Amino acid sequence: MTSHTRISIIDFSENAIQEYKPGEDEAIPVQEGLRWVNVEGLGDMQQLEKLSTVFGLHHLVMEDVLNTAHRPKIEDYEDYLFVVMKLFHYDNKSENLQEEQLSFILGSGLVISFLENANDLFNPIKDHLAAGKGRLRRRGEGFLAHALMDCVIDRYFLLLETVGDRIEHLQERVAGNPTPDVMIAIQNLRREVFFIRKALWPMREIASFFEKDDSPLLSDTIRPYFRDLHDHIIQLMDMLESYREILSDMVEIYLSSVSNRTNEIMKVLTIIATIFIPLTFITGIYGMNFVHMPELAWHWGYPLIWLVMFSVAAYMLNLFRRRKWF
Amino acid sequence: MTSHTRISIIDFSENAIQEYKPGEDEAIPVQEGLRWVNVEGLGDMQQLEKLSTVFGLHHLVMEDVLNTAHRPKIEDYEDYLFVVMKLFHYDNKSENLQEEQLSFILGSGLVISFLENANDLFNPIKDHLAAGKGRLRRRGEGFLAHALMDCVIDRYFLLLETVGDRIEHLQERVAGNPTPDVMIAIQNLRREVFFIRKALWPMREIASFFEKDDSPLLSDTIRPYFRDLHDHIIQLMDMLESYREILSDMVEIYLSSVSNRTNEIMKVLTIIATIFIPLTFITGIYGMNFVHMPELAWHWGYPLIWLVMFSVAAYMLNLFRRRKWF
Amino acid sequence: MTSHTRISIIDFSENAIQEYKPGEDEAIPVQEGLRWVNVEGLGDMQQLEKLSTVFGLHHLVMEDVLNTAHRPKIEDYEDYLFVVMKLFHYDNKSENLQEEQLSFILGSGLVISFLENANDLFNPIKDHLAAGKGRLRRRGEGFLAHALMDCVIDRYFLLLETVGDRIEHLQERVAGNPTPDVMIAIQNLRREVFFIRKALWPMREIASFFEKDDSPLLSDTIRPYFRDLHDHIIQLMDMLESYREILSDMVEIYLSSVSNRTNEIMKVLTIIATIFIPLTFITGIYGMNFVHMPELAWHWGYPLIWLVMFSVAAYMLNLFRRRKWF
Amino acid sequence: MTSHTRISIIDFSENAIQEYKPGEDEAIPVQEGLRWVNVEGLGDMQQLEKLSTVFGLHHLVMEDVLNTAHRPKIEDYEDYLFVVMKLFHYDNKSENLQEEQLSFILGSGLVISFLENANDLFNPIKDHLAAGKGRLRRRGEGFLAHALMDCVIDRYFLLLETVGDRIEHLQERVAGNPTPDVMIAIQNLRREVFFIRKALWPMREIASFFEKDDSPLLSDTIRPYFRDLHDHIIQLMDMLESYREILSDMVEIYLSSVSNRTNEIMKVLTIIATIFIPLTFITGIYGMNFVHMPELAWHWGYPLIWLVMFSVAAYMLNLFRRRKWF
Amino acid sequence: MTSHTRISIIDFSENAIQEYKPGEDEAIPVQEGLRWVNVEGLGDMQQLEKLSTVFGLHHLVMEDVLNTAHRPKIEDYEDYLFVVMKLFHYDNKSENLQEEQLSFILGSGLVISFLENANDLFNPIKDHLAAGKGRLRRRGEGFLAHALMDCVIDRYFLLLETVGDRIEHLQERVAGNPTPDVMIAIQNLRREVFFIRKALWPMREIASFFEKDDSPLLSDTIRPYFRDLHDHIIQLMDMLESYREILSDMVEIYLSSVSNRTNEIMKVLTIIATIFIPLTFITGIYGMNFVHMPELAWHWGYPLIWLVMFSVAAYMLNLFRRRKWF
Repeated sequence: MTSHTRISIIDFSENAIQEYKPGEDEAIPVQEGLRWVNVEGLGDMQQLEKLSTVFGLHHLVMEDVLNTAHRPKIEDYEDYLFVVMKLFHYDNKSENLQEEQLSFILGSGLVISFLENANDLFNPIKDHLAAGKGRLRRRGEGFLAHALMDCVIDRYFLLLETVGDRIEHLQERVAGNPTPDVMIAIQNLRREVFFIRKALWPMREIASFFEKDDSPLLSDTIRPYFRDLHDHIIQLMDMLESYREILSDMVEIYLSSVSNRTNEIMKVLTIIATIFIPLTFITGIYGMNFVHMPELAWHWGYPLIWLVMFSVAAYMLNLFRRRKWF
Repeated sequence: MTSHTRISIIDFSENAIQEYKPGEDEAIPVQEGLRWVNVEGLGDMQQLEKLSTVFGLHHLVMEDVLNTAHRPKIEDYEDYLFVVMKLFHYDNKSENLQEEQLSFILGSGLVISFLENANDLFNPIKDHLAAGKGRLRRRGEGFLAHALMDCVIDRYFLLLETVGDRIEHLQERVAGNPTPDVMIAIQNLRREVFFIRKALWPMREIASFFEKDDSPLLSDTIRPYFRDLHDHIIQLMDMLESYREILSDMVEIYLSSVSNRTNEIMKVLTIIATIFIPLTFITGIYGMNFVHMPELAWHWGYPLIWLVMFSVAAYMLNLFRRRKWF
Repeated sequence: MTSHTRISIIDFSENAIQEYKPGEDEAIPVQEGLRWVNVEGLGDMQQLEKLSTVFGLHHLVMEDVLNTAHRPKIEDYEDYLFVVMKLFHYDNKSENLQEEQLSFILGSGLVISFLENANDLFNPIKDHLAAGKGRLRRRGEGFLAHALMDCVIDRYFLLLETVGDRIEHLQERVAGNPTPDVMIAIQNLRREVFFIRKALWPMREIASFFEKDDSPLLSDTIRPYFRDLHDHIIQLMDMLESYREILSDMVEIYLSSVSNRTNEIMKVLTIIATIFIPLTFITGIYGMNFVHMPELAWHWGYPLIWLVMFSVAAYMLNLFRRRKWF
Repeated sequence: MTSHTRISIIDFSENAIQEYKPGEDEAIPVQEGLRWVNVEGLGDMQQLEKLSTVFGLHHLVMEDVLNTAHRPKIEDYEDYLFVVMKLFHYDNKSENLQEEQLSFILGSGLVISFLENANDLFNPIKDHLAAGKGRLRRRGEGFLAHALMDCVIDRYFLLLETVGDRIEHLQERVAGNPTPDVMIAIQNLRREVFFIRKALWPMREIASFFEKDDSPLLSDTIRPYFRDLHDHIIQLMDMLESYREILSDMVEIYLSSVSNRTNEIMKVLTIIATIFIPLTFITGIYGMNFVHMPELAWHWGYPLIWLVMFSVAAYMLNLFRRRKWF
Repeated sequence: MTSHTRISIIDFSENAIQEYKPGEDEAIPVQEGLRWVNVEGLGDMQQLEKLSTVFGLHHLVMEDVLNTAHRPKIEDYEDYLFVVMKLFHYDNKSENLQEEQLSFILGSGLVISFLENANDLFNPIKDHLAAGKGRLRRRGEGFLAHALMDCVIDRYFLLLETVGDRIEHLQERVAGNPTPDVMIAIQNLRREVFFIRKALWPMREIASFFEKDDSPLLSDTIRPYFRDLHDHIIQLMDMLESYREILSDMVEIYLSSVSNRTNEIMKVLTIIATIFIPLTFITGIYGMNFVHMPELAWHWGYPLIWLVMFSVAAYMLNLFRRRKWF
């Protein structure tokens, strides 16, 4: 969590738009038209307290905004709706999955969004508002809330594409000659899919709430948009379920490939050992120093023993071939 | 996705039928009687836009028609119902399962169907309509929607037959002397069954919607037909569940067969090694060059040592036979 | 499916009973009292068409009667109820599980039953009706429908007894020295249990429908009988679940027994090899032909080397015994 | 099932109590106050028929009482409630789990209990009634039914304690040096837990029925007692679930212990073999009989070869130690 | 369970607070304002009886308070609510998970809490009450009940942190060179997570009951606080689910690591054995004592045989390298 807090306030109507960036000690200006307050970074407790007082938020809401270990949820505080969501990205350096919390409040004529870190997630929406021709300017706070959620869901599609690439990369490694670290990589990816799934699951309920709730904050024209969002989340869930299935198949393929290799190794050992151990025994016999061993004096004894050994080896090889060992 | 779009418009009533194929720049003719618009190929955005405007479709509907990664669903847009379905076929060349999206709109007196690719899926229905004696001509748009869905479900029966053949083929390979690629083939088939199941599951809800909904678009006489369709989908789901069960049994049989083979190989090695290693040790003894080894000078020493060795070997073989190793 | 169709019509009341067996070209006689039409064999399309016309059945019903791949279900066609059920028996020759479809229609004063094959399934009911003293003659079509279903469920009890015997037989084979074909036999039995379960599951709903539905075809006095039937089906489901549990335990026992045997084989190999390989090495040393090897000339060299070898072997055996290898 | 039937009839009110034991041919005396009929042993059909007639029981009830393969259930026959329950005990000789059926009827002022075998299960309740000071005498048939069920549930607590002891005993055997029969013992215990669970599960519903039903047979003051019983059953289910979890962990520990042992055995074999096989090869070289082998004549040849062999062995041992093989 | 019982009674209102610690034989003082009775240790039956009489508790409640094997639950006794909860801590010595039961009664103006052992769990609440400025003093018994439950849930967060540390510690051990006791440690931890989950699960329902119930004991202003508690419990459940997932992955990694090691060991054995067994055979040949072995007399025979042996070894090594065995 970064230690500072950046607040930007955008007041807009169909015809006008105005952005404020109040400093730490400046007051919040009076609202004109619809207002979107975007808070980036949750480090400056003083500023957040000020916001909470100005907009009359329940202290449990502020606690939830700050407790970034929350699972996604929607809560109805009568005057406003409070929504918590999760975002994920892969850290560039450590390649680990990073979680980020994001929450927003949808009140009458007012949207307040909180981002755990300062980043540019909502810049496209700002640009869109500034450009001034979209539905967003005309249609009120519900559409802005939809735009924020849509923006988050789009990020999930990008995230799942990355996960899909990683799975494909792992599949190639499993297909070849898998080493134990492939197993660990599969399990890591499984756990990441598990975490993403757990964060996405309650977001389905959030979208469904917006689709079905009859709150006065939500007009009828917006419902198809939230139904669409709901659809997208289900599509994401489907992708995650496929990933889970594929990853769990990969574990099975990995394990079966390890046991196949043990099998291969055993076969090589057995073929070599079962051919040469009897032959070595034969040489051992005629290496004995008994005084009375008639064969040793035979003229064709040595070539004969070679013949015997070749026969034994040929018989063995034939046996293994019949068993399809090679 | 192919880049062109082929539109065919069929206006029909119990007594008359008329087909138009408007070119890219031609207007859509005025509707007479019931109308079925069949769109094949989603490449020509301009034509699709035109359609959307003429028939007053919500822009989210058009987005869903074009986004071919959608899962099957039904949506009620008050004036019309919007249905998305999936089709599968095995690519002739790559032998991979190909997915195709198919959607249709059921409005008052109007059905618009969209196919991702230009193909002849709905030709039987066209022929049926042209022949002009079926229920289809008399009974209105609901029956046409049913005919489209029925046509899709029939394709699934063909598809599942192919999958069944593939499973049978794999079963033979598993029963014999399975190689690691059998495992991969099983997993591939499992994943295909998984994808088909996921596409079919929501189609149950679609059929159920048509069976139970009291939309004015649907008459009472049509309900038994949708109930029948619902039944067929459940029958397909049952087949898929059986396939899944069989495939997961096959994984177990494969794995147990690999571990049985390891067992076999180990047995061969152990039998040969445990018989000949002690014998070789005996020959080793009498191969030593000690000056004072009385046995070497015995007249019956050599035959005696053969006797000893035979006894050891016989004892070992007997032991293994008692343990049922061969 | 056999190619002929055998129709027998039984008209009965408390006091009278009359059976007709109309030939292919004869008309169906006029109904007196309650009527039970029993159709065995679905091969003669013409006769079935005739029946369908006489009793005014929906053409979807006739399609379902003929499509023997249907899952059990109940459908309410307002004038009558339509029920599909499944029966199983083991083929005498191939020992495979054979499926047979059975459907019946319960109308006002009328029951029509369809059997896929001509067999004597319902003979006990005929005899019972003919004997003329049971509840069946007095109490109407609902009781006849119950008798048909009860007859089917009784067959399931016999079937599950056979399955239970087969499981017991397999258990003995697994306990001994299991071969790979035991595994395949377990999986086959699992699949059979799976199919029986799938056929039985929807029959629970059918019994439950009859128990709870307030159709005028069903009187209040009959409900306890259908509740009893429902109970029996649940009892069958419980047995199947136990079988499933036992079979899946058997797979685990089989696999663990295979890995135990590998263990045993490894132990034998290791004991023999680790004892004799060092001894053979020792004999190898004194088999070398170096000119200067003082030990070879020692008078007690040969007995001494025996002593050394005995010590090594005893030490090894002691080591293995301490590790509880034998 | 024993062949005789022992009936005892207890009529009681707050002030008086009277016990009859009617012989086979004696009539049932007229009821005074509340009546409890306890039937032990279901062998004497004639007596059971007599009971059924006297108390006006449905013939399906009597069938269920006699069919001891029933699962627990509750049925509402308007005039009375019919409850079937299961009991288990370990047979002293065979150590197998024995199942016993128990059913009772709760009518107005009347409880009839049926025990499959003659045993002393309900003696504590008889003693309690005879002692005459408890709630039981004052409060009517609902409390008596509760006492019977409570008595059964107490037996389950004893049973689960025994199962718990067996699990603990097995855990010790798994922790040590598990033999294949441990696996079979685990699976047997698993199956027993499975059967107990299946018998207990529907008893939850029975308790819940008594807790919630508004039958006139049940007063409001009794509800907390049935809620308490319900709680106890859930507690038993929880214990069974824990047992199941522990037993399935034990299977995993057993299997992993077997594969660890294979590992250990392999290690011993590999260490001995890889050290001595190369050394034996070296002795083999200088055991060859070539005429021209200069090393054989070297004065320090023999000590030198010892040095070489020591170095090889030391290198190998070092290698294994670095790989942490011992 | 300790044998003594420590009762402390705190009567408080917004302005005053008074604490009594009645001795064994002292009466309970008359209530002023809100009353919180905290009972630590359940050993002194006499005192508990006295409490039960004074506050008019149902005797089933007292039984449940004393039966510490109960699962968490909430029961509505009309005049008061009765709540049972569980706490866990790791025993300092044995490192085992210890369970403790905790129950409380929420009546009008009255909270009675029972702790199985005397400990300082609720001291922070006492201090908070004494300090006298919080919501707790002003807002009544519902808030006190919330404070007690919140206190318990906070303990769970600490507990899960400890569990998380243990999992991390195990993960390091699995990643390295896992010994069989790692497997047992994983299973132990799994079982602990299982028990915590089972205790936490019904607490969700308790929180949900307080959130939704319209009991007069609970005001509207308190609902968001119980919703918050509910959220925290779901967060804990999520953490436990993640732990479970991670632990079950660890079992798979452990097993795959064991089979990988077997693989490694096999490879070493096979490489050494397949190289030296054929070589030893060759030396065996020229160790034979046949009179007619021309090679032995060749001048370059000995160097030649070295060449042959080098070639064989090189060929073998090359083969293994091509198979990527090292």
